[in-house]
Formats: sequence, C-alpha cells, structure tokens
Amino acid sequence: MATTVRSIKSLVPLLDRVLVQRVKAEAKTASGIFLPESSVKELNEAKVLAVGPGAMSKDGQRVPMSVTSGDRVLVPQFGGSPVKVGEEEYQLFRDSDILAKINE
Amino acid sequence: MATTVRSIKSLVPLLDRVLVQRVKAEAKTASGIFLPESSVKELNEAKVLAVGPGAMSKDGQRVPMSVTSGDRVLVPQFGGSPVKVGEEEYQLFRDSDILAKINE
Amino acid sequence: MATTVRSIKSLVPLLDRVLVQRVKAEAKTASGIFLPESSVKELNEAKVLAVGPGAMSKDGQRVPMSVTSGDRVLVPQFGGSPVKVGEEEYQLFRDSDILAKINE
Amino acid sequence: MATTVRSIKSLVPLLDRVLVQRVKAEAKTASGIFLPESSVKELNEAKVLAVGPGAMSKDGQRVPMSVTSGDRVLVPQFGGSPVKVGEEEYQLFRDSDILAKINE
Amino acid sequence: MATTVRSIKSLVPLLDRVLVQRVKAEAKTASGIFLPESSVKELNEAKVLAVGPGAMSKDGQRVPMSVTSGDRVLVPQFGGSPVKVGEEEYQLFRDSDILAKINE
Amino acid sequence: MATTVRSIKSLVPLLDRVLVQRVKAEAKTASGIFLPESSVKELNEAKVLAVGPGAMSKDGQRVPMSVTSGDRVLVPQFGGSPVKVGEEEYQLFRDSDILAKINE
Amino acid sequence: MATTVRSIKSLVPLLDRVLVQRVKAEAKTASGIFLPESSVKELNEAKVLAVGPGAMSKDGQRVPMSVTSGDRVLVPQFGGSPVKVGEEEYQLFRDSDILAKINE
Repeated sequence: MATTVRSIKSLVPLLDRVLVQRVKAEAKTASGIFLPESSVKELNEAKVLAVGPGAMSKDGQRVPMSVTSGDRVLVPQFGGSPVKVGEEEYQLFRDSDILAKINE
Repeated sequence: MATTVRSIKSLVPLLDRVLVQRVKAEAKTASGIFLPESSVKELNEAKVLAVGPGAMSKDGQRVPMSVTSGDRVLVPQFGGSPVKVGEEEYQLFRDSDILAKINE
Repeated sequence: MATTVRSIKSLVPLLDRVLVQRVKAEAKTASGIFLPESSVKELNEAKVLAVGPGAMSKDGQRVPMSVTSGDRVLVPQFGGSPVKVGEEEYQLFRDSDILAKINE
Repeated sequence: MATTVRSIKSLVPLLDRVLVQRVKAEAKTASGIFLPESSVKELNEAKVLAVGPGAMSKDGQRVPMSVTSGDRVLVPQFGGSPVKVGEEEYQLFRDSDILAKINE
Repeated sequence: MATTVRSIKSLVPLLDRVLVQRVKAEAKTASGIFLPESSVKELNEAKVLAVGPGAMSKDGQRVPMSVTSGDRVLVPQFGGSPVKVGEEEYQLFRDSDILAKINE
Repeated sequence: MATTVRSIKSLVPLLDRVLVQRVKAEAKTASGIFLPESSVKELNEAKVLAVGPGAMSKDGQRVPMSVTSGDRVLVPQFGGSPVKVGEEEYQLFRDSDILAKINE
Repeated sequence: MATTVRSIKSLVPLLDRVLVQRVKAEAKTASGIFLPESSVKELNEAKVLAVGPGAMSKDGQRVPMSVTSGDRVLVPQFGGSPVKVGEEEYQLFRDSDILAKINE
C-alpha cells in the first residue's frame, strides 16, 4: 500500500471517496509522561483531508457529499482503503461510510 | 473505537444515522441492594440522542427519519457502530434498523 | 433482549414492522391433565398486536400493510427480532415476512 | 411449525404466496399391495389450495398471480414454508417459485 | 423429484421457464457395438419441449422469450430443476440461463 | 460439456452471450523445437466466433454489444461456460465479461 | 494470463474498464545501491494507459469516465484482472474501483 507520492495534498479522491487521516491517541499521559508505542491505541476519529466530487446518480447528477475538507469525523473501525505517503498512513472511505461529524 | 470527543453533544450523525445510548438495567435489586457488575445485563432499549438529516433518495430528496432526538426506542441486539466518549458507550444505527418507539 | 418497558401497548412498530406474540400450545391434554413445560411446543401461529405505518416506497409513498392489529397470522419458524416485556416474549417481523392470515 | 388452525380453508396467503399440498405417492403397488410408509416417497407435484392477491409492484400495482386455486403444479424440491394443520402438512411458496402447471 | 404426471406434454412452464430434455450421448460406438451404461455421458445439449409466456417486466409487460418449442439449445452444465415423468428425466431452466441455440 | 453439434458455426449465442475460442500458446519454441503438451499454457486471449443480439434492457430495448464476430479479445482467466464441439473447446461469456479488444 | 499481444498499445478496454500499470518501487537505495529483487515491493500507485468508452447507463447513455489516459492513480491493493504482454504485467480495473488521482 506504499506509494511514491511526495505530498498527501496531491491526492484527489474520485467519485464519492473521502481521504481521511485517523487521529492518533496521545502518546503521553495527562502528567506528561510519554507512553511506549504499544500503548497508543488507534481511534475511530479522523480528519477529512480531501473529498471527491460525489458519485453519479442514475440520471447523471452528482450526489452531494456529506462531509467537506477540514471536517472532524467518526469513521468505521474496519474498512476503507489504506494509503501510505512517506511514513504517514491515510485512508480512503466512501462518503456514505462516514458515521458522523464532530462539531467541537 | 475510542475518540477524543469531549462531549457526546458534539456528534452530528450523517445521512440516515441515529445516535443512541442503550439503557442499562438497574444495578440494584428492588429492595435496594446493589448488584455486582456482571449481573447487570444490557437491554435492547435505547435513548435517541441525535439523528441525521435522512438518506438521499434516488431523485435527490431526503427520506424523512422515523425517530427524533429524545425518543425511547428498541434497537436490534446486534449491529450498530460503537462509539466511546470518555467512559460512556454509544451506538450509531441506521434509521431503518430501529425496531420500534416506546411511548410511555 | 430484555427491556424496561412496562406495557407491551407502549411499543409502536416503525416502518413496515409488525409486533406479534406467538400462540402457545395448550399446556394441558384434551382430558385436562397439565403437561410439564418441556412438552409445550411453540407454534408458528401468532397474534398481531401492533403494526407500523408501512415502509416508504421510492417515490415517497407509504406501502400499505398486509395485516392489521388483532389479526391471527402465520409467521416463519425462524427470524424476527425478539422483545421481552416483563415475563412475556414478543417478536417484531417485517410485513412481507408474514406468511398468511388465519380467518376463523 | 404446528398451528391451532382447525381447517386449512381458514388460511389466506398474503401478497404473492401460494398455499399448496404436495401429492403423496401411492402407498400401494399396481397389484394393490400396501407398501410400508418408508417406501412412500414425496413427489414435487402439488395441488394449489389458495393464492394471495399478488405482490405489490413499485408503482403500487398488484402483480398478477400465475396460478390459481385448484391448479396442479410442479414445486421445487426444496424451499417453501411448512405449515401443519392437524395431521396434514402444507407448504407456502412464492408465486415465482412455482415451476409449471400440470394440465391433465 | 418424481411426479404422477402421465405425459410430459401436460407440463406448462410458468413465467420465463423453459422445459428441456438433455440429449443423451449415443450408447453405441461408430461400429455399432452397444456401450455399457456407465460409458454414456450426459451432454449439455438439450431439446426445448415447452416454454412459459415470459417473465413480467416492472411495468407489467411480458419479456419475450429467446427460445421456442422445438429448438435445439445449449444448457449450462449445472442448475435447472429436475422433473421426472415416468422413466424419463427433464429439466426446467429460466430463459436467460439458456446459452445458445443450435441451428443445424 | 460435450455436444453432438457438428460445426461450431451452428451455435447462435442468446441475449448478451459471446462465443469465443481461447488462443493456444505456440507449442514450439522460437527455434522451431516442439514442446511437450504440458508446457503449452492457455492464454487469456480469445477470438470471437459469434455474438448474441444483446440483453434486453428494462424498457424492452436491446443493449448493444461491445464486441463483434472476428474480434480478438481479452477474456477473464476464470468463468465462462465451456462448450465442446468435436475435439475443440470453446467458451461462452457475457458481453460485459469481455475485458478488452486487441487491435493489431 | 499470458497473451500473444505484441504491444500494450493494441489493447482497447471495453465499457468502463481502465488499463493500468502499477508503479514499481525503486530497486536501488537513495545512495544508489541496487536492491535484490525480493526487497522491491509493489505499490498501489499506477499509471493509466487506456480507458474504455464508459459503461452503459439504464437509459442507454454512456456514463463518463473519471480518469483518462496518462493519469497517475491510486488503485486498490487487491482485485483487477491481470494481463501480461511480453515480460510486463498490467491490470484492468473498473473505473469506479480507481481510488484517487495523483496530481503532482
């Protein structure tokens, strides 16, 4: 799943796909002590980096997307297509797989 | 399935999703004695905390939702996407998965 | 599948769901002798207690229901969502899963 | 699959369902000797006892049924919902599962 | 899969079903020697004996059939519903399962 | 999958089916030495021998075919219905299963 | 999956298919040392070599393609139909399987 892509900003999702990066849990405790990597769990919270133009409906119209670039969202625990750019991991989901927006 | 969300009120379900919290069975007996946690069973009854705007129909209309925020509902025993905010567990269901409203 | 619902009458099925209670086989023989519980078999006959307003068709119309509250019906042997209110067991089926009405 | 139904005539199939009873093979040989029950095989031939009003098409019309009460038909070897009334076994099929009519 | 049908001509396929009989491979060699039954392999070639009126399209029209009674056709190796009339084996396929006509 | 068909030219594919014959890899090396049969691998390249009239769309129109008789095409590695005429093997694919045309 | 095709340019994808070649990871390190072949991993990045005319929609219109010849794209890790021309490996995907364009 590696790529030769230099910047994640070069990725343009197609149709109804949404490019996200999962939020990583804090790797240090409240008192500031750094945790060993194995204690850092992955969250099902993500940031939307880019969205496609929307799927084509049967009558040739674009179905509007539910999320937009910059949104904080809840993503399902499984599924999505992994993309690796440099050392960072990203995921592509379909718009209808995104569970909720986080407004805070 | 953990998140960094501070308040469950920040979650805005997308499309036809319904955010619920299952009702916990009473952790004490009728005579007021507290039961150990393992005897507290989860019920398939839940409270609706937030609902999405509805799925998009094929002709670009929103399909109206069957439940609304504040409703008491029956949810299926399995399925739904788990969400954890702080110590509390929540679930996201699709509107059409909600079995019944409880009017009492 | 337990609930805190006080009365089954509080349950309002959603969309095309049908709330039924299976008929229990007689727990006594023709000559009036009571049978031990293990000999009482469950039947695939049920009484309709409440029905939803009908599923939404693609053009936004409600699909009329085939059964109504009070109907005696045949239900499939498997499937349906179990609901427990107090000591009683009920089931929610979709309207199109109900096999036949019993008119007698 | 047992019922408390007194007469099979009370059963009214819903939607596109067809109530049939499979024809039993003759339990005696051509020369009139009765065969033990285990030699009597079940056939995939059946008599139609009652038919539903037809499924609802997407534009709210009833789809006409292919068979009618009294027809002799071929039914698939597997599938169908079993119904027992008294000592007799019946089956409910969907109209589109019935393979052929027998006109003789 | 046995029936009490006296003549295969009594079978009237429903909807888009096609009644065929597979062609049996010659049970004798070119030089006229009869082969033992186990060497006679079944072919995926068949003769159409009867066809249904066609499936119903969504707008209530009959979809025309691709084959007609008397056609020689190629049938898939697996699938189809077996029917036995007397000692003969027949099969019912759906029209869209028939692979090709044989014009010779 | 054998047939009694005398000539492959007698086969007329139905609906959207395409009759092809896979191209066999050369059974000799560039220097002209014949290879033993086990070294001759099957290719996923094929020649179109005949095509059906096209599937029926929902509004009763024929969907045009993508390939025509005489085309060289790429076929999927698996799938398709095998047909044997004499000693030769052929395959029937659906039009939408054909991957690409080869124009050279 | 081998072919006798002489040039990949002869391949004309049908319907909504997209012919791509996966980008190979550099077989040498940054300092110019060549790596043994087993360390060269396949990427899920690909170059589009040719695209089909688009699938047919239900009302007989071509659905426009999302990518065009020359595009750099992200492809799923699994799936796609392999094609071998000479020593080179290519893949055919459906247009809707392509995840994203790479614009750099």
